[in-house]
Amino acid sequence: MREELLAQINSPEDLKKLDVRSLEQLAKEIRDCIVATVEKTGGHLGANLGVVELTLALHSVLSTPRDKIIWDVGHQCYAHKLITGRRDRFHTLRQWGGLSGFPVPRESEHDHFGVGHSSTSISAAAGMVIARDLKGQDFKVVAVIGDGALTGGMAFEGLNHIGSLGRDIIVVLNDNEMSITSNVGALSDYLGRIRSHSFLYQAREGLAAFLRRIPLVGQPLAKIAHRLKITLKQMLPGQFFEELGFAYLGPFDGHNIGELQRAIRAGLARRGPVLIHVYTQKGRGHALAEESPHRYHGVSPSNGAPPSTAPSFSDVFGESLVRLAEDNGNIVAITAAMRDGTGLGPFAKAFPERFFDVGIAEQHALTLAAGMAKEGLRPVVAIYSTFLQRGYDQIIHDLALQKLPVVICVDRAGVVGDDGATHQGVFDISFLRAVPGLTILAPRTASELQAMLEWALQQEGPVAIRYPRGEAAALEPCPRFPTAHSIPPVEVKQGRDGVMFAVGPMVEVALAAAELLEPEISFAVVNMRALKPLDSSFVKQVVEGKKCVVTLEDHVLAGGFGSSILEVLQGMGGSAAQCRVVRLGYPDAFIPHGPIERLHEEYGLTAPQVAEVLRQGLSGHNLQVLVGRDV
Amino acid sequence: MREELLAQINSPEDLKKLDVRSLEQLAKEIRDCIVATVEKTGGHLGANLGVVELTLALHSVLSTPRDKIIWDVGHQCYAHKLITGRRDRFHTLRQWGGLSGFPVPRESEHDHFGVGHSSTSISAAAGMVIARDLKGQDFKVVAVIGDGALTGGMAFEGLNHIGSLGRDIIVVLNDNEMSITSNVGALSDYLGRIRSHSFLYQAREGLAAFLRRIPLVGQPLAKIAHRLKITLKQMLPGQFFEELGFAYLGPFDGHNIGELQRAIRAGLARRGPVLIHVYTQKGRGHALAEESPHRYHGVSPSNGAPPSTAPSFSDVFGESLVRLAEDNGNIVAITAAMRDGTGLGPFAKAFPERFFDVGIAEQHALTLAAGMAKEGLRPVVAIYSTFLQRGYDQIIHDLALQKLPVVICVDRAGVVGDDGATHQGVFDISFLRAVPGLTILAPRTASELQAMLEWALQQEGPVAIRYPRGEAAALEPCPRFPTAHSIPPVEVKQGRDGVMFAVGPMVEVALAAAELLEPEISFAVVNMRALKPLDSSFVKQVVEGKKCVVTLEDHVLAGGFGSSILEVLQGMGGSAAQCRVVRLGYPDAFIPHGPIERLHEEYGLTAPQVAEVLRQGLSGHNLQVLVGRDV
Repeated sequence: MREELLAQINSPEDLKKLDVRSLEQLAKEIRDCIVATVEKTGGHLGANLGVVELTLALHSVLSTPRDKIIWDVGHQCYAHKLITGRRDRFHTLRQWGGLSGFPVPRESEHDHFGVGHSSTSISAAAGMVIARDLKGQDFKVVAVIGDGALTGGMAFEGLNHIGSLGRDIIVVLNDNEMSITSNVGALSDYLGRIRSHSFLYQAREGLAAFLRRIPLVGQPLAKIAHRLKITLKQMLPGQFFEELGFAYLGPFDGHNIGELQRAIRAGLARRGPVLIHVYTQKGRGHALAEESPHRYHGVSPSNGAPPSTAPSFSDVFGESLVRLAEDNGNIVAITAAMRDGTGLGPFAKAFPERFFDVGIAEQHALTLAAGMAKEGLRPVVAIYSTFLQRGYDQIIHDLALQKLPVVICVDRAGVVGDDGATHQGVFDISFLRAVPGLTILAPRTASELQAMLEWALQQEGPVAIRYPRGEAAALEPCPRFPTAHSIPPVEVKQGRDGVMFAVGPMVEVALAAAELLEPEISFAVVNMRALKPLDSSFVKQVVEGKKCVVTLEDHVLAGGFGSSILEVLQGMGGSAAQCRVVRLGYPDAFIPHGPIERLHEEYGLTAPQVAEVLRQGLSGHNLQVLVGRDV
Repeated sequence: MREELLAQINSPEDLKKLDVRSLEQLAKEIRDCIVATVEKTGGHLGANLGVVELTLALHSVLSTPRDKIIWDVGHQCYAHKLITGRRDRFHTLRQWGGLSGFPVPRESEHDHFGVGHSSTSISAAAGMVIARDLKGQDFKVVAVIGDGALTGGMAFEGLNHIGSLGRDIIVVLNDNEMSITSNVGALSDYLGRIRSHSFLYQAREGLAAFLRRIPLVGQPLAKIAHRLKITLKQMLPGQFFEELGFAYLGPFDGHNIGELQRAIRAGLARRGPVLIHVYTQKGRGHALAEESPHRYHGVSPSNGAPPSTAPSFSDVFGESLVRLAEDNGNIVAITAAMRDGTGLGPFAKAFPERFFDVGIAEQHALTLAAGMAKEGLRPVVAIYSTFLQRGYDQIIHDLALQKLPVVICVDRAGVVGDDGATHQGVFDISFLRAVPGLTILAPRTASELQAMLEWALQQEGPVAIRYPRGEAAALEPCPRFPTAHSIPPVEVKQGRDGVMFAVGPMVEVALAAAELLEPEISFAVVNMRALKPLDSSFVKQVVEGKKCVVTLEDHVLAGGFGSSILEVLQGMGGSAAQCRVVRLGYPDAFIPHGPIERLHEEYGLTAPQVAEVLRQGLSGHNLQVLVGRDV
């Protein structure tokens, strides 16, 4: 019985033969399949369980790939993948070489636009409808966006623009009252009010009849009554969207396939921009996920291995910040909808009045911090490296130019693994080190992160601390760094022939690689700690007399850490001029999804691979093939 | 008579002694002073003339620096500067070493927050009120934001967040129906409706009285009437802001000082977030500026020199695009509120249906282009280098990752002159060259820009073309670049001793510098043209046998073009290892305002200074002092 319907769905066209009852059965089978798969592969459980009926309703009314569905954020595409010819490969979800957890055009013609970051769908859809109209085509374009993604300013920019053009576009607002944890902001409150006041929708007809019966005595009153009629539409929910040029339809039950189909058909029948407001429940149909939706937002695979007990860098950051905040009432923490992911959960619990979740709004998060710092607070903004790309201008224009003491904790720096190309944090060193006056740190261990955080909170300008996803090595405790001095690099291992400069936990790889070659070949290892400003006299001193310099970073090579070492070495004459420099990191390509260890291996960043580079670096062989390759 | 009042205003406290009539007289004096000064210095005329009364009203009610006024975009601060102790230095506006055209905290304690880019004021103000409340202080915070700046998504992020917190904050919406040219978007339409329907505001009282007289027969009707009363407030203007948690006051006449003072006092008397909606007229009081506000947005100084007749790079871009678009109906152009500045005026006129001004919304502009490209259009997005920082994530996530053929014309790349630190376009090479698969070009001449644009529109992936503010050298025509090949560098001058690699118009500086040293010292000059991908075999070939390599870029040194040359040279052995490399560009500091020539001189980028570097580079002297210095 199980999956008997799903087994027959090879393309969305197959849905068109099914009645609502069969679609409901199919929804159940899809839900079971998602739960069973994610249990093994890991993935975004809650969001995907919430949109099963919506996905079936959309695909049963629309005809993709002719019509286009843009899934905002993209982590709500599992049901979509299951019914668009990828059922048989679904077990490879988020595995190396397998299906991506996000829509990827390379994977299927039904994945019309690549997505991973939030709030892009309306802009992309707007571009498509403009192109369609200019070319005289007539397909439908639907952007499906969550209420969380709607807090991103970019979504507003898109609504504001396309809302004024009068073109046919449908935005489905998938309102599950939360982005990753609970939702924040005035718009969220507003959507809540629509829910609680939706009686107004039903009351509309009654009101109209009522107004028709009002006796109009004299001109002024008649005029007023006329205005009253005009403004009746203001009594409908969704006025916010109506003011932005959208016809508002809703709210609808996002788990009632028949109602959804009717709503989508009604939207398609209208001219101009239409917003369809749909309520869904995150984790729907999975008792645990319904109860604790934020715990089931992202689920790790149960691959039999015992769960790790070592704290992650994020955990260490969060706990350290709580400790520091106990002694300093000016410390506040800001997150852009990533409270738990960034490790700020304990801080939020301990200091609720000093914790600020601003929604998916990185730009605002950083300038909010600038304003706070201006008034004497010590704000710490924790943002994933990949999402910090959204706040680049604010770092330059609001933090660095004004020398404001904001600490940016750049979490998930380096490859992040299963989320893949959209989420790899491999550009931050390049874009941050161009910013004048910004200090950039990279801790190797848990205790180094603690000491750096404490030091950063004493500085007079902005400081970024980058650290990767995953466990933080405990190792020996790191002493406090004196406030008045910059944080010095440390030569963690001496060596005769060459030296490796490494960023953060790449120090472990460097040490292991050096170990493999001893005693025949002897490389020093430097934990750089401060990437900017770079201690150039230290670098020159260590390089002096060496035959080979190797840099290691979990980051692209273009303009990265290795380039900053080249910039330092450029001015050296003498023996350094004879010194061979090899930079290890990622080539000029987007890094796909896969386990972090697998990705490091793929790009030559494991200890044996690095050891081979060291050997060849000294011998003078051509190194091209070893230094990062495109896939 | 003239300026007799202004001469007495040494701080905003002096305003408190003046009655409305005197303030009106002062407004007139300030207006005269601004017009007379900007005629000599250049500057933002229209915006500043529009807010004279608003500035006086704010300062006569508030007490800065205790209270804080944050001027969004910042180019509306001239009246503010005149009455906050800078009257005597006002003639130095935008001059080298003189007053900045934007609020700068270093300049005055009344400039509480640095601004230059748009849409940051609400976030900064939000941070300040949160800090104030946490610290138990009680000053007032007012963000003054234009309707144009409100189209930036960041402003929405700020409204959405602070609107939900219930803290005391005032946002003054300075609605002049345009950002730089005319305003766009649904929100702008909405503000227009408020203006035309503001009778609703007056009608409110009448309606309330009317409703009180309605006979309530039976429960259902009574209930409906009750709801009607509840929803009366929806009939007020400003519901959009009310839904975002703000109390809406307005609209008010922004040139009526008495009305403005009452509105501000009313706003200050309320608890929670308040939005005060004010209508102003750009260019107010200046006949020409009132008539053609976009022509008088930014005014050039009338310094006696004959106005240049040579076309700027922006002009050349705009005209070339029109020509190309005549033959290719798929070409569309997108600007983020910079139609004329980017040279897109002629395109907008020739192809209104293929031209899109999305408002101050760089993020949306880029992803909109991605959506268009996905459907077969050939979008060209023209954005100033400094504003492109706002769309960095979209370039990575929406254009490059999906290999979509969008052409980004990076205008105002390099130092921009009088606008200063907030607007210098000196980071784009560093942040763009980290992006996998992005092609980056830099034309030296007008005809090279034309040929590059034509080539870029034939490519299958994204291409960025960076060019500076100012005149484009005509020189010899540049032949078409074959679509199937990358654009090759060209050795524009041969040389014996060393080689200079230069970016765009820095080639002229390199040639002039080489000229100064001939024939004793002979340097080759390379016009690099394609900054990414870099033609490494060409670079290696030219470097072979040379004793000195010098790179020239109108850009920061950290991770810039010079570093990419270092990355190429790193792998070279043999004689290249003995070669001295000197990178010329900007150091790790923000570049202040001043004439472009003056800034180049300050940072060692004039021909005689470069010639000195070449001489010393060959001699082996220490070069540190010559390579860019902090100011």
